[in-house]
Amino acid sequence: MREIIECVPNFSTSDPRAVETILTEIRKVKETYVLDHTYDSYYNRLVVTYIGNKNSVYTATLNSAIKAIDLIDMTKHKGQHPRIGAVDVVPFIPIQNTTIQDCIELAKRFGKALAEKCHVPVYLYGKAASKPERSDLDWIRKGEYEQLSEMMKKPERKPDFGLTSPHPTAGATITGARRIMVGFNVNLDTADLKIAKKIARALHAKKGGLIYVKAMAAKIPEKKITQIGMSISDSERTPLHRVFELLKIEANRYNIQVIGSEFCGMTPLQAIIDVAKYYLKINELYEDRVIEIAVEKALKRRS
Amino acid sequence: MREIIECVPNFSTSDPRAVETILTEIRKVKETYVLDHTYDSYYNRLVVTYIGNKNSVYTATLNSAIKAIDLIDMTKHKGQHPRIGAVDVVPFIPIQNTTIQDCIELAKRFGKALAEKCHVPVYLYGKAASKPERSDLDWIRKGEYEQLSEMMKKPERKPDFGLTSPHPTAGATITGARRIMVGFNVNLDTADLKIAKKIARALHAKKGGLIYVKAMAAKIPEKKITQIGMSISDSERTPLHRVFELLKIEANRYNIQVIGSEFCGMTPLQAIIDVAKYYLKINELYEDRVIEIAVEKALKRRS
Repeated sequence: MREIIECVPNFSTSDPRAVETILTEIRKVKETYVLDHTYDSYYNRLVVTYIGNKNSVYTATLNSAIKAIDLIDMTKHKGQHPRIGAVDVVPFIPIQNTTIQDCIELAKRFGKALAEKCHVPVYLYGKAASKPERSDLDWIRKGEYEQLSEMMKKPERKPDFGLTSPHPTAGATITGARRIMVGFNVNLDTADLKIAKKIARALHAKKGGLIYVKAMAAKIPEKKITQIGMSISDSERTPLHRVFELLKIEANRYNIQVIGSEFCGMTPLQAIIDVAKYYLKINELYEDRVIEIAVEKALKRRS
Repeated sequence: MREIIECVPNFSTSDPRAVETILTEIRKVKETYVLDHTYDSYYNRLVVTYIGNKNSVYTATLNSAIKAIDLIDMTKHKGQHPRIGAVDVVPFIPIQNTTIQDCIELAKRFGKALAEKCHVPVYLYGKAASKPERSDLDWIRKGEYEQLSEMMKKPERKPDFGLTSPHPTAGATITGARRIMVGFNVNLDTADLKIAKKIARALHAKKGGLIYVKAMAAKIPEKKITQIGMSISDSERTPLHRVFELLKIEANRYNIQVIGSEFCGMTPLQAIIDVAKYYLKINELYEDRVIEIAVEKALKRRS
């Protein structure tokens, strides 16, 4: 069995040509496989999911980040998702035969190289954070790109690598290590961003919501609706059904209905199994009951 | 990629020693892997799920059937699940790099050998049926073991292999080929079997229920509850949420609640994904979004 690390960088662009160039840089690295990519104009943001071994993921990440810094001009960037740079955040995630420690080392290696090669200041976050408050993305993103220059003058906002002022067009980059996470977006039948923000706050951990949930509201102008964009950092302890049912309860206060949902990026199997368990009232259900998984495991036991 | 066939024989026993002997016969065949087995006293029935290639599955199935015929005495058998023999039904299912035709041939090869070696009459069902009415298990099981001797005198009930009278202690066996199926049991908070039977009939295809659903009711005496035991032969067209929600609606007529559910045997991933899709209102969700599946596929594409 091979080592597998996942990387899910977020780039501040939704320009199809920039997207293609970034994807090409990742795909051309041997032993790296792009599993998914999503981008849209309302977040103006590209999220790529790929896997590989330590070295291939490192190379793909550095090469694509260098391209993105070259292509993206943050002075002209608008988007509803908080961001501080062209290569906004780069998390490394242990998947198979790798540890969170491997990912911390990878984040530091990548961050150091990026700062040196591109003169972009780099912050470490999550499990790679150099100080407790830096484990939180929101803390590092405070003020966003627009106030970054000012924010970086504060001693507590000194980056972990590189200069203490932003790159003129690429801002700064955040990288780190974390566990697998579920990205879950729910669309509401209201165009009223104020109400959507109230619902997002009701779910957001730091505003009194569910402890492993971060939630934000965004407008989807072309559909005249709003979206609650969420990340669930521990979907075992805070399962999807709890997030979804609580969201419906809070939306119901304003007579707002859920139109539909989507996962952003990849989802762990157990999170989906747990949805079936809750709604079908199944007491016990493990991935070994899934025929595809059981077959793979049986064949691997043999080899 | 190797050929994989699944076999899910149902044996008329819940005696732990007989269960162990049958499982041992299957496990000792090289290239055969037991994925699951379940048995209980109220059905008095053992269901084993294993996979292998054509030859290993053939050997494991024949060897375990010979043992079961030796161990099980149908003259003393009581159980709530319809059955006509010690080795009641033996379906073969194509999983990977095999076709339904392969499974039909396997069923015929197994049926012929069993009839010759053990003097047990054998019926072919499902996709292996020799006549349209025989594709239906219920048709072949009519009268069950108790009336088998009489039923077999009818020309239309002549077996496909072996004698036209039952084996004295083992009855008869049904074998055939089918697609993957979902076994789904739902427990109700009533001990009243009459009401449970009404609910089962409401779901059962031939009584006016859902076309791909077979449903029966059984008592679970030690828990003083009843169970609706179902098989869903096409869980893509008749997804689990439809079965479950309709069951709740019919139970609600009698003020009966669902206590819990369970899968019997293995479940295809898409059936579980479809549950999440329905309840979380997800428009599109494919197995490629499941990280474990995406990683396997990426690694296979490479090799």
